[in-house]
Amino acid sequence: MALPLDAALLVELERIKRLKYAYLRCLDQKLWAELRALFVDDATASYGGGRYEHDDADAIVDFISDAMGDPGVHSSHRVTHPEIDLTSPTEATGTWALDDTVIDTRFDVTVRGAAFYEDRYVKVDDRWLIAHTGYKRTYEEVFPRTSIEGLVLTASWWSTRGRSELG
Amino acid sequence: MALPLDAALLVELERIKRLKYAYLRCLDQKLWAELRALFVDDATASYGGGRYEHDDADAIVDFISDAMGDPGVHSSHRVTHPEIDLTSPTEATGTWALDDTVIDTRFDVTVRGAAFYEDRYVKVDDRWLIAHTGYKRTYEEVFPRTSIEGLVLTASWWSTRGRSELG
Amino acid sequence: MALPLDAALLVELERIKRLKYAYLRCLDQKLWAELRALFVDDATASYGGGRYEHDDADAIVDFISDAMGDPGVHSSHRVTHPEIDLTSPTEATGTWALDDTVIDTRFDVTVRGAAFYEDRYVKVDDRWLIAHTGYKRTYEEVFPRTSIEGLVLTASWWSTRGRSELG
Repeated sequence: MALPLDAALLVELERIKRLKYAYLRCLDQKLWAELRALFVDDATASYGGGRYEHDDADAIVDFISDAMGDPGVHSSHRVTHPEIDLTSPTEATGTWALDDTVIDTRFDVTVRGAAFYEDRYVKVDDRWLIAHTGYKRTYEEVFPRTSIEGLVLTASWWSTRGRSELG
Repeated sequence: MALPLDAALLVELERIKRLKYAYLRCLDQKLWAELRALFVDDATASYGGGRYEHDDADAIVDFISDAMGDPGVHSSHRVTHPEIDLTSPTEATGTWALDDTVIDTRFDVTVRGAAFYEDRYVKVDDRWLIAHTGYKRTYEEVFPRTSIEGLVLTASWWSTRGRSELG
Repeated sequence: MALPLDAALLVELERIKRLKYAYLRCLDQKLWAELRALFVDDATASYGGGRYEHDDADAIVDFISDAMGDPGVHSSHRVTHPEIDLTSPTEATGTWALDDTVIDTRFDVTVRGAAFYEDRYVKVDDRWLIAHTGYKRTYEEVFPRTSIEGLVLTASWWSTRGRSELG
């Protein structure tokens, strides 16, 4: 059962949304220490629609930083459509829609997809943290970037320090 | 005229946003009965920038489920930028930005586009419902997926149960 | 230091979010006079990851309207993940994630990218306005649309009045 929505609850929802936004910013900016601090120690995760399962915050962050840590990996993970319910004053569930793009210049591939997250959050010492995160894919697709003639990368957070070299 | 924004009104805005998010989740997860329950009976809709017009909730849901019901249709409809005003305690208008992708594996095509929604909502028995929804396209484009050599689908909500088969 | 989040502050956050959404709607709908009214006169901007710098609201709007004014330019700029803090009752900072697509039919190119905005807002005469906006790119890419055989535009805000001509 969800607690009834009122102004005090809205404050909690905003704080939970910011937790999720910080998670995604850390993911796409490769901020691993800040990312780690967003999880409870025994957090669980299910990525790739259940293909990758983890049951420890350190293992989650290790998995992500291994997969995404190389500066050739350029990612945009964007969530929208939060449907968040507090199930107690210190527990919440959240559904989100995800659209993500990963451009990996090491292998010259683009991966794109869409998914729905099902998360759980807990409030510890007045801070909301991620207890579980996981998503199931609506679709995912991959293509070699050489298949689109003239496709070029004109900016990179890492190799051009975020500056456009277009035109 | 919009009612002045205060904490009580924010609660109503959050509820209207969740209505829209539920609408889009039902659309992309093909949940037709739950989708139908989000509309008033005499709801109107204008899709494709006015190309498809409906003036009855059953007709709207029939139209959507006919167009999107096949498991070969993989869609991601994502809205952002809500500009919602209450025009009375039980009526509201809302503008949203839409980005959408549809991958249809039956015909091996991708359709992608951007649009702005102009919606109307009404509160009936303490629940917000959709009275009108419609959008106008900024752009829409389509391409045969065979034109990008090596483009493959690596996950599908329906054929891989949302699990990635990448790599 | 951020002011502590409570219901009154949430109202201010909602108003700042709507300022940003209006900015992006004006950008993609080419509403230059409405766009100009969203900035303080001495606003500053940094686009393209610092490639284009402006220190006057008129110059910012001139730059944008020169770059985006032609009806051949079809753009979708979408922001998510607001992390907004009030640093005083009339000053705020905001981080946003951006995903953008520009289809330019004059040159038959698509530009796509992702970035993070770092903005500053000020409240003047009870209205929030943009004092600074700027972003740094995670990535940006461009390709000639002729490289994808059969890629066609099937709707345009300007040339089809937003109506789909698909199928």
